[in-house]
Amino acid sequence: KIDGARLWDSLMEMAKIGPGIAGGNNRQTLTDADAEGRALFQSWCEAAGCTMGLDSLGNMFATRPGIDPDALPVYVGSHLDTQPTGGKYDGVLGVLGGLEILRSLNDMDIKTRHPIVVTNWTNEEGTRFAPAMLASGVFAGVHAQDWAEGRTDAEGKRFGDELDRIGWRGEEEVGARKMHAFFELHIEQGPILDAEGKEIGVVTHGQGLSWTQVTVTGKDSHTGSTPMPMRKDAGLAMARILEKVNEIALSHAPHAVGAAGHIDVYPNSRNVIPGKTVFTVDFRSPELEVIEDMEARLRKEAQAICDAAGLSVEFEKVGGFDPVKFDEGCVTAVRNAAERLGFTHMNLISGAGHDACWINRVAPTAMVMCPCVDGLSHNEAEEISPEWAEAGANVLFHAVVETAEI
Amino acid sequence: KIDGARLWDSLMEMAKIGPGIAGGNNRQTLTDADAEGRALFQSWCEAAGCTMGLDSLGNMFATRPGIDPDALPVYVGSHLDTQPTGGKYDGVLGVLGGLEILRSLNDMDIKTRHPIVVTNWTNEEGTRFAPAMLASGVFAGVHAQDWAEGRTDAEGKRFGDELDRIGWRGEEEVGARKMHAFFELHIEQGPILDAEGKEIGVVTHGQGLSWTQVTVTGKDSHTGSTPMPMRKDAGLAMARILEKVNEIALSHAPHAVGAAGHIDVYPNSRNVIPGKTVFTVDFRSPELEVIEDMEARLRKEAQAICDAAGLSVEFEKVGGFDPVKFDEGCVTAVRNAAERLGFTHMNLISGAGHDACWINRVAPTAMVMCPCVDGLSHNEAEEISPEWAEAGANVLFHAVVETAEI
Ligand SMILES: NC(=O)NCCC(=O)O
Ligand SMILES: NC(=O)NCCC(=O)O
Repeated sequence: KIDGARLWDSLMEMAKIGPGIAGGNNRQTLTDADAEGRALFQSWCEAAGCTMGLDSLGNMFATRPGIDPDALPVYVGSHLDTQPTGGKYDGVLGVLGGLEILRSLNDMDIKTRHPIVVTNWTNEEGTRFAPAMLASGVFAGVHAQDWAEGRTDAEGKRFGDELDRIGWRGEEEVGARKMHAFFELHIEQGPILDAEGKEIGVVTHGQGLSWTQVTVTGKDSHTGSTPMPMRKDAGLAMARILEKVNEIALSHAPHAVGAAGHIDVYPNSRNVIPGKTVFTVDFRSPELEVIEDMEARLRKEAQAICDAAGLSVEFEKVGGFDPVKFDEGCVTAVRNAAERLGFTHMNLISGAGHDACWINRVAPTAMVMCPCVDGLSHNEAEEISPEWAEAGANVLFHAVVETAEI
Repeated sequence: KIDGARLWDSLMEMAKIGPGIAGGNNRQTLTDADAEGRALFQSWCEAAGCTMGLDSLGNMFATRPGIDPDALPVYVGSHLDTQPTGGKYDGVLGVLGGLEILRSLNDMDIKTRHPIVVTNWTNEEGTRFAPAMLASGVFAGVHAQDWAEGRTDAEGKRFGDELDRIGWRGEEEVGARKMHAFFELHIEQGPILDAEGKEIGVVTHGQGLSWTQVTVTGKDSHTGSTPMPMRKDAGLAMARILEKVNEIALSHAPHAVGAAGHIDVYPNSRNVIPGKTVFTVDFRSPELEVIEDMEARLRKEAQAICDAAGLSVEFEKVGGFDPVKFDEGCVTAVRNAAERLGFTHMNLISGAGHDACWINRVAPTAMVMCPCVDGLSHNEAEEISPEWAEAGANVLFHAVVETAEI
């Protein structure tokens, strides 16, 4: 078994870097805080006897060698970046849980046939630079590296420039590594395990995602002296589209969700009718046809709303992935580990996207989930218990070690 | 008659300071650009032989002496600050039109019994620091000076600190000056004069304004893994409230308008359900009871929407003024001037708020309006013709000189 107290201590240490405003974290990707978090992780890996690999998108790979020189490594990991008002566990648990496996193997002096590599993927959250899971997406061959490096944040800064600025660009080609398998431990970020009172989620599938950035263009004009019939209010049109987003998602309930988290209004002045709004609609479903239907209806409804009001509207798909079915062998390894350790468990479809969703395309992959209180995540108040973290890391440990072979 | 070409040249010179991104201006109050614009105005006033007074809120007063030492000055002016994406004429025409009067009187070597004072009021626009017409409001005794100085911008900077920073705080007590009368020339910012083909608007009334800042608090959580029924989406609730704002204003059509120009969403991340939205609802009407009805209905409807969704909502009145009836003597002076000069004219109710609306409480006040193309204002594409500017300034000239007595 792993050392739950040590894992918890490391989680709390990491949480000191990039503190939030309400007890959580703001350690967004490619910020100074991200660099600090990476350095701490690297120092821990080196203290555990690992060598650190770094690819040219900043993905980090801490390797514990195996016995068989021909055996491909078993990879394990997640991400250290957070939301702007994020929790202490989202992503971090998967990286430090991976590190804890290595530390425990060292303690027990266990050698594995396959090397084990702990990974920190760059820009999983996708807040600063859309889309989410950007670097693991390049690793899996889904995105071109140039395209990824050219993504810009709200201030117009390029991903590639910010990576150079924080000094975490490596030499290694992205995606050059071959994997025997990949395992990711993550908090559920949804309410099911907590509500069902289960300690472990065996993730069999991940729901798919579509991010459509909508730009509504009206005409900025005076809120006082512009008569109502002459207005081209991009804020009002946005409001109507947001209502439709909700309607569309509910029409597929419970097999879909939809909302807009990102909303910018221009020029954002109290006495100027908004001339432009830019917002991103997030639709998800475990069924591809449902996602496609929601996307199509969004475009149709938004177009109709804007046409009726004499506004123009543009759509850009800024992120997305199809629903995922994880590898049966890896999923079974996770379920068997939970069973063997005597944890209550259930199958889950991941509601969130994860690096594992992309890596699943290039390696046999599965995920372990542990509950989080009230299913709350992407919130500084995100909380888990030390026992949940320990149980998740133990299941990860057993699944990984079984796959890496003693 | 005034010199229309010189007036236009000055307008174009001033427009070089704080250029916008689309041909207009971004010379927001208490920015470096505002300081630069003030310095240019001061240099012009001094070149015209005036002394410049400056009060402790940065209101500027360029005085051309009168003959009678006991006669109170006739004031004329408007504001040099602009919207973030504002036009070249909104406010500026009234200040530089005032300056043009002094220059023309100098050219003609005309002395007036009453002194004439050209004023630049600080923070008319209210974008950076709510409310609008802040410093003229203190001058008129509507707001306390301390309160005004404590207003903060989006970055939390205080009005008083920014005034000190740009170096335009004077010694003079705000509101100490007594006025014989106040005249303000302004572009209409609405479509009526342009549509009716009239050269001059004789402003008899101003509609009233109410700014209610609405804060909806939900719970930020994951857009993917939070089931629809568990969401507390402050963005969706805002959307519903915005639809109601429109409905409420339309229910009083054509005697009311309503919109929200300022909208902020937190944490504004694509995959986080908005946990908080803050937006300002702008309602206007020439009738006080209509404004009061709209405010009350907004609060009721927003409360009902948020109650139904399990969210909380708070309201703060961040600006407002009652409908205004301008001074009959001053209005008649404006109408007579237009008539005498042979301009087509009509009575107008100002759709926008103006410094004149506050000064009207402490001095006989009226306004002259000239058309703007398509009624467009609070937009960088705001446009007027040199002829319209000249006609407006000539009417101002005649009304002011008649009131100041030759
Ligand atoms: N796990 C997680 O929150 N990832 C971010 C991508 C997503 O929005 O699902
Ligand atoms: N004239 C003008 O645009 N003033 C700003 C105050 C208002 O919103 O009416």
